[in-house]
Amino acid sequence: MTPPRVVIVGGDPGGMAAISQIRKGRPDAAITVLERGSWTSYSACGIPYLVGGIVTGGPQRLVARSPEEHRRSGTDVRLHHEATALDLDRREVEVLDRDTGSTYRLGYDHLHLATGGRPMRPPLPGIELPFVHGVQSLDDAIDLLTVAEHGGIERVLVVGSGYIGLEMAEAFVLRGAAVTVVEKRAQPMTTLDPEMGALVARAMAGFGIDLRLGVEVNGFADREVHTSAGVLAADLVVLGIGVEPRTDLAAAAGLALGAKGAIRVDERQATALDGVWSAGDCCESTHLVSGGKVHVALGTVANKQGRVAGTNIGGGRARFPGVLGTAVSKICATEVARTGLNEREAKRAGIDAVAVAIESTTTAGYWPAAADLTVRLLAERGTGRVLGGQIVGGPGSAKRIDTLATAITAGMDVQQVVDLDLAYAPPFSPVWDPVAVAAREALKAV
Amino acid sequence: MTPPRVVIVGGDPGGMAAISQIRKGRPDAAITVLERGSWTSYSACGIPYLVGGIVTGGPQRLVARSPEEHRRSGTDVRLHHEATALDLDRREVEVLDRDTGSTYRLGYDHLHLATGGRPMRPPLPGIELPFVHGVQSLDDAIDLLTVAEHGGIERVLVVGSGYIGLEMAEAFVLRGAAVTVVEKRAQPMTTLDPEMGALVARAMAGFGIDLRLGVEVNGFADREVHTSAGVLAADLVVLGIGVEPRTDLAAAAGLALGAKGAIRVDERQATALDGVWSAGDCCESTHLVSGGKVHVALGTVANKQGRVAGTNIGGGRARFPGVLGTAVSKICATEVARTGLNEREAKRAGIDAVAVAIESTTTAGYWPAAADLTVRLLAERGTGRVLGGQIVGGPGSAKRIDTLATAITAGMDVQQVVDLDLAYAPPFSPVWDPVAVAAREALKAV
Repeated sequence: MTPPRVVIVGGDPGGMAAISQIRKGRPDAAITVLERGSWTSYSACGIPYLVGGIVTGGPQRLVARSPEEHRRSGTDVRLHHEATALDLDRREVEVLDRDTGSTYRLGYDHLHLATGGRPMRPPLPGIELPFVHGVQSLDDAIDLLTVAEHGGIERVLVVGSGYIGLEMAEAFVLRGAAVTVVEKRAQPMTTLDPEMGALVARAMAGFGIDLRLGVEVNGFADREVHTSAGVLAADLVVLGIGVEPRTDLAAAAGLALGAKGAIRVDERQATALDGVWSAGDCCESTHLVSGGKVHVALGTVANKQGRVAGTNIGGGRARFPGVLGTAVSKICATEVARTGLNEREAKRAGIDAVAVAIESTTTAGYWPAAADLTVRLLAERGTGRVLGGQIVGGPGSAKRIDTLATAITAGMDVQQVVDLDLAYAPPFSPVWDPVAVAAREALKAV
Repeated sequence: MTPPRVVIVGGDPGGMAAISQIRKGRPDAAITVLERGSWTSYSACGIPYLVGGIVTGGPQRLVARSPEEHRRSGTDVRLHHEATALDLDRREVEVLDRDTGSTYRLGYDHLHLATGGRPMRPPLPGIELPFVHGVQSLDDAIDLLTVAEHGGIERVLVVGSGYIGLEMAEAFVLRGAAVTVVEKRAQPMTTLDPEMGALVARAMAGFGIDLRLGVEVNGFADREVHTSAGVLAADLVVLGIGVEPRTDLAAAAGLALGAKGAIRVDERQATALDGVWSAGDCCESTHLVSGGKVHVALGTVANKQGRVAGTNIGGGRARFPGVLGTAVSKICATEVARTGLNEREAKRAGIDAVAVAIESTTTAGYWPAAADLTVRLLAERGTGRVLGGQIVGGPGSAKRIDTLATAITAGMDVQQVVDLDLAYAPPFSPVWDPVAVAAREALKAV
């Protein structure tokens, strides 16, 4: 057999996680990575902590595997090389060398699209002004770190209150700035139900963040943000309104797009076109509860999808069953986590959901470090099937969401969660783990 | 209907957790609790932390619900009243009032045996000397707290290296004592596989505990412990060699005993005799992986069994499916957790198990508080079914065992664990949760 030529577009996890798996199946594969930026395999999730000064030592601390390391294991990593067009019939990629401006064509047997996502930038007046920053690439991080450290930034305005928005808000509070978060909806973190969002709002207030709910941003001018509630002054604006799949290349080549405009893939991470694959923030996933197609831009998902794509490219057989949208974040001392469907999503999926919330503590109540936490649990009326969960609380709260994620994946009902043999000792949990207490409440309600 | 008369023998969780459930079904029930000690509904698991001075405010801090509180909700709690015999034919309990020395008979429609466990006291010379302490009741705790605070205790010897033994060892280190732990087997914490026990041994050494492995205790004399390795001096001895079910009453009445001599019950917590129930450390459980009967003396199990018994006594229908032996402990800054079968147990159950261990970190590697952890995972060869897991590591490690406990309960295989949508953010986990990394390793091995 001739060694297969594999071209990976994008140096993000969805692309790079494929490499080891490809080599496992086909050690002879000739793998080329086209990355238009300067970095590979870095943790975008670490950017807020770099900017906030919690992670020190420079942006390279977030790099799991440098281009040089990839090259040492035989991968042809081409930085500043951008795939500008796909010729799917001839199985060629058109490439621009951004350093020289020259272009060339690269043939492939397998094309793996890992073009990632980009922070949404709504077409508002002034959005291209230099004080308006997205948070996605390590180059964004370097820009933000530079201004955080040297820029005399006193007033920061964050647009949007998702995970990235709030983590960036915290980062700039840690840098001593006055931070305002503008959210057009009535709660922060709309992946949570409103009651849990209110707990996040309270934590933000406790940390000195000025949260403006129900306020829309209309545009930007010099050190000004124009909103539905008037003009707000800001030295720096961070966009935290979500990530959209970067699919220009795929769309222009005629590949089918699915949920939220992400590249359509099957559970093998294959597009409809033989030999063309995709993984990461640029492609869609299947939701394990609703069964619908969703777009979840998270590093964990990108890594898993990348491995699955890699195994299949290498001639193996792997499938990625899907996602629950599990996510976790730390807003100061408050931990926030969610998994599965929230009430709005359950309604949209046509599922009759019952929601309960309980308050408990992270440890035995008498343990000195006991902190409050709230667990919200959604279950299907009648069957009792667990649909989703949300946790907001003090240190030690959030990773409990994994118990619910596992239970939901297994199709457990609330009785089965009550019966789980979860770990207990006073420094770790009350004798009834809060997750089990929530399930007990839900049992009464379903 | 005449109100049912329910007699509960024992004020521990297995008994008291039944009460609310009995009332839910039969609000008219006349419930009497016979407790030979002075306390109800306390957390025995908190005793080491009380003795060590981590939990302050006295033994009553460990009481979840006092006798007075139980009485206020209509339960006839009789302290210092001991059930001395059961007349199962006439449905009567013979009771000794320990304060007055008088005896009387108490009739019942339902008898709920929650006599708990007791620390094993092997019949060694000198074991009844007052410097040899068990750790079970709150009265034991008060004794130990008194000597810890006022007793001039300089040298403490702990016999056995299970959870209680090691937690008590830590407690006395915190009190400034020189602590020796004597364990007859070749590793501490024999509920772990030897490799994980070795990690615990290392943590103990780091905390200044003198661990003597492979040493047997032969007897006790004044401030001396006679062992297979010579005489060791000690001002205080703590027995931490396990808990045995307290079943004298049940056995004398002819009730069948099962695993480790614990009271035999079905999944309704019913004994073979109509109207006689049992829950907690005195009765057996079903192991969810092996299917065999086991004796697990843990507060979580007692609470769940107590509720199930209560629901059934109240005329409802509930079942307790079983246990995984999930347990967690903190030995200084080191967290230890286990669930399911270990290698020895798998072998005994006739299951062909593959074990893998991986090292990872509790958070993203670049997070300042990142701590090492080791995850060991057992899976069935061929099927890949997850059988058990063990975790030893720094702060934030141990509660991950719940993910494995949930996965095992659901009958998941290692591939399904790899695919789990577990929560990730840099302060909480590497992008691949260590549990998933262990499952990936196991996938290669099975």
